[in-house]
Amino acid sequence: MSLKITPRSEDFPRWYQDVVQSGQLAENSPVRGCMVIKPHGYALWENVQAALDRRFKETGHENAYFPLFIPKSFLDREAEHVEGFAPELAIVTHGGGKELEEPLVVRPTSETIIGHTYSKWVQSHRDLPILINQWANVVRWELRPRLFLRTSEFLWQEGHTVHANEAEAEAETLQMLDIYAEIARDWLAIPVRTGLKSKLETFPGALRTYCIEALMQDGKALQMGTSHNLGQNFAKAFDIQFQDVDGARKLAWTTSWGVSTRLIGGIVMAHGDDKGIVLPPRVAPVQVVLVPIFRKDEEKIAVLAEANRIIDELKERGIRAKLDDREQLKPGPKFFEWEKKGVPLRLELGPRDLADRKVVAVRRDTGEKEALTFDGLADSMVERLDAIQAGLLQRAEESMAARTNEASSMEEFEALLKEPGGFVLAHWDGTEETELAIKEKTKATIRVLDDEVPGTCVLTGKPATRRAYFARSY
Amino acid sequence: MSLKITPRSEDFPRWYQDVVQSGQLAENSPVRGCMVIKPHGYALWENVQAALDRRFKETGHENAYFPLFIPKSFLDREAEHVEGFAPELAIVTHGGGKELEEPLVVRPTSETIIGHTYSKWVQSHRDLPILINQWANVVRWELRPRLFLRTSEFLWQEGHTVHANEAEAEAETLQMLDIYAEIARDWLAIPVRTGLKSKLETFPGALRTYCIEALMQDGKALQMGTSHNLGQNFAKAFDIQFQDVDGARKLAWTTSWGVSTRLIGGIVMAHGDDKGIVLPPRVAPVQVVLVPIFRKDEEKIAVLAEANRIIDELKERGIRAKLDDREQLKPGPKFFEWEKKGVPLRLELGPRDLADRKVVAVRRDTGEKEALTFDGLADSMVERLDAIQAGLLQRAEESMAARTNEASSMEEFEALLKEPGGFVLAHWDGTEETELAIKEKTKATIRVLDDEVPGTCVLTGKPATRRAYFARSY
Repeated sequence: MSLKITPRSEDFPRWYQDVVQSGQLAENSPVRGCMVIKPHGYALWENVQAALDRRFKETGHENAYFPLFIPKSFLDREAEHVEGFAPELAIVTHGGGKELEEPLVVRPTSETIIGHTYSKWVQSHRDLPILINQWANVVRWELRPRLFLRTSEFLWQEGHTVHANEAEAEAETLQMLDIYAEIARDWLAIPVRTGLKSKLETFPGALRTYCIEALMQDGKALQMGTSHNLGQNFAKAFDIQFQDVDGARKLAWTTSWGVSTRLIGGIVMAHGDDKGIVLPPRVAPVQVVLVPIFRKDEEKIAVLAEANRIIDELKERGIRAKLDDREQLKPGPKFFEWEKKGVPLRLELGPRDLADRKVVAVRRDTGEKEALTFDGLADSMVERLDAIQAGLLQRAEESMAARTNEASSMEEFEALLKEPGGFVLAHWDGTEETELAIKEKTKATIRVLDDEVPGTCVLTGKPATRRAYFARSY
Repeated sequence: MSLKITPRSEDFPRWYQDVVQSGQLAENSPVRGCMVIKPHGYALWENVQAALDRRFKETGHENAYFPLFIPKSFLDREAEHVEGFAPELAIVTHGGGKELEEPLVVRPTSETIIGHTYSKWVQSHRDLPILINQWANVVRWELRPRLFLRTSEFLWQEGHTVHANEAEAEAETLQMLDIYAEIARDWLAIPVRTGLKSKLETFPGALRTYCIEALMQDGKALQMGTSHNLGQNFAKAFDIQFQDVDGARKLAWTTSWGVSTRLIGGIVMAHGDDKGIVLPPRVAPVQVVLVPIFRKDEEKIAVLAEANRIIDELKERGIRAKLDDREQLKPGPKFFEWEKKGVPLRLELGPRDLADRKVVAVRRDTGEKEALTFDGLADSMVERLDAIQAGLLQRAEESMAARTNEASSMEEFEALLKEPGGFVLAHWDGTEETELAIKEKTKATIRVLDDEVPGTCVLTGKPATRRAYFARSY
């Protein structure tokens, strides 16, 4: 709680750890790589979930739930898939006091078990499309865990859909990518770059992987969500076939898409400052906190009465408002605590304010202080919350624009990566070899491909058909 | 889908399987004991969750999330706890391609890992109470699985609270028991008997276990939720201590309480009939379904236009209404499908109805049909949904009253268990020996203890200080 926060400029990874912990979002658990998501962090996740879930349902998806355990043999059916996930698996060998005949994998993702299930559900073109999402925990063994960013267990949603043809599968893949970008921008106040991954960075077993990539304050990219057109690979592996209108039996096309609690890490690293977390109002568990100030008992009665009235008024307006009436803490420590937790607006109400029928409002993002009249206070709050939301997005957009630059030589490339950091747009000859060589040389990887524009590869000088956005990343 | 439903009177367990499957709630998965919860079943669970979550939050609880994995050694710290759960554990022995130094248990419940965490969070009386709930999946290896009722993996919530003294812990335990009983009655339309468990049926490691018990249509009891006063047992095992107001260091008191997807099984067995599931309107994913009827194209246009208008009107009123405009199905099969799914009200709208400005409404619970005018239709729907909700509860209450009888001899006890079934109230001498002997003889167990009323034990004839409710159970 009284943890000192390392400045960002001094050590960004330590700053991250400090603000996540002092902001009471999460902490490490005794199980290596698994985290405890504390109430403040979980409430933030619930708000992000609600925003996503609403959009999933609006676009025709339903939620369902599939088993945590997957027979090991299921993974083996898709060669790239098992190769990609084998090193990260947690394996159950004993159940009910006995050794299992076949080991079970704790799901790292559910394409295989869901593919198996869909093969029974899909018989005719009339059964298509299947549009299902699952909210679940998954496990990918992590040797260098970091709260929210890389944890052995994490919470996520995974959408799994089945379509009659490639065009529909591709449209679904892109629709979900758009929804992710929209939620990132409109709810998390994080602008993202969207696009296709290179083959090297494609999801194991997918035909094409699209993703949303954001820039953190240290200039590194964070992959915040992926949407995969799985082609017919999993349909083949799990025999998802249907009788089409023309009577022929055909292999189906599937997609999958997911975002996880990693988004919380993104919010922290995109907006936080040296005082702690800064939460975008639309997802903040508490949007406005009121700290009452008084000395004498009669002041306390009057101040708390007015404070409660204000809180009720704000709640009625749909604002998530909270009165911090804890007796054992003085106002100062309360201010610091809510600052660390990232609450967008703080109200301070003392005896003198009562007389003036005013309250002091302090913005978390800018530190700006103003005295606001009781009259129209809910309106003032809504305006300021909107301004904070817009301000965070604008700042992040400006930062991303300033940190997206084009390089036509490797010298330029490396110089830009160092300063200002962020995305370096460069021509690439399209080979895995060059991609790996650039990674080796610069630690930067292709985050997304750019549209096709002919040119010369920044590393090899060979002809290139397209550019790519490179960055160092989480 | 076209599965024939076995009548309840013929074979209740098969009827249950048939209606769960034909009602599209869930199905078995290739992993023994794990189920796939289908969209209709999951949407039902989401509504139950929402009702519970609201009450948890209203009573001051926050959600958080703790790890799926628990070090095996944690369970060993509470002797009764490990003894109770050891036979049901799923054990992870390998992670990230290596054998683990210490095996991890997939949580069967989280008292131990949460107890460990709370020992760090609790230092002073100022940190108390801690009021936290977790929505999660848990695993208890099940050799004879039944969808929703007993599955190796199930979804649930588990509340875990810490208090400064016994009185507060007991008050919390009873408060949550009351909330469970309230949700069962007011949302699921299931009356329950609440009370204390005998020592034999107490949660491993708890001081006292309270539960809610409902009667299913076959006269068997279903334990639908439990609330445990854990005393200081887990505080001792995990060293949850605090400095009290008087400066002394004291052991804390903890509670835990949970309900699971088993509730879905309870809804099915409490209200279903030989045609399928019957859902209480307050938790039904779809409350009103409208099936349009037409032959010619011009009829279709007119009917669908009016149908859409009606659906919009009902939705605006807050009713979960759905238009079934699937082209490939005739009205008859649609009626059957929604009947099996348990949708409370069906509307039928054809060309003649249009002319009369009326719609035919069919109640799922009674089969009653009536023609309702377009004017005031939303009001009519709300009234009927309320009537169905109240009717289901009343029927279940009458059934429970008729199946709760007192026995003063074992002959009477056994006769009552056979006919009418349900709860048999009888004096019991309070010994585990007698409890087990009665179970051996009748297959009935103590579901909850009754208040203290002196009498003579129904089996041994020894003096008894209290009665108990016995029943065969799930």
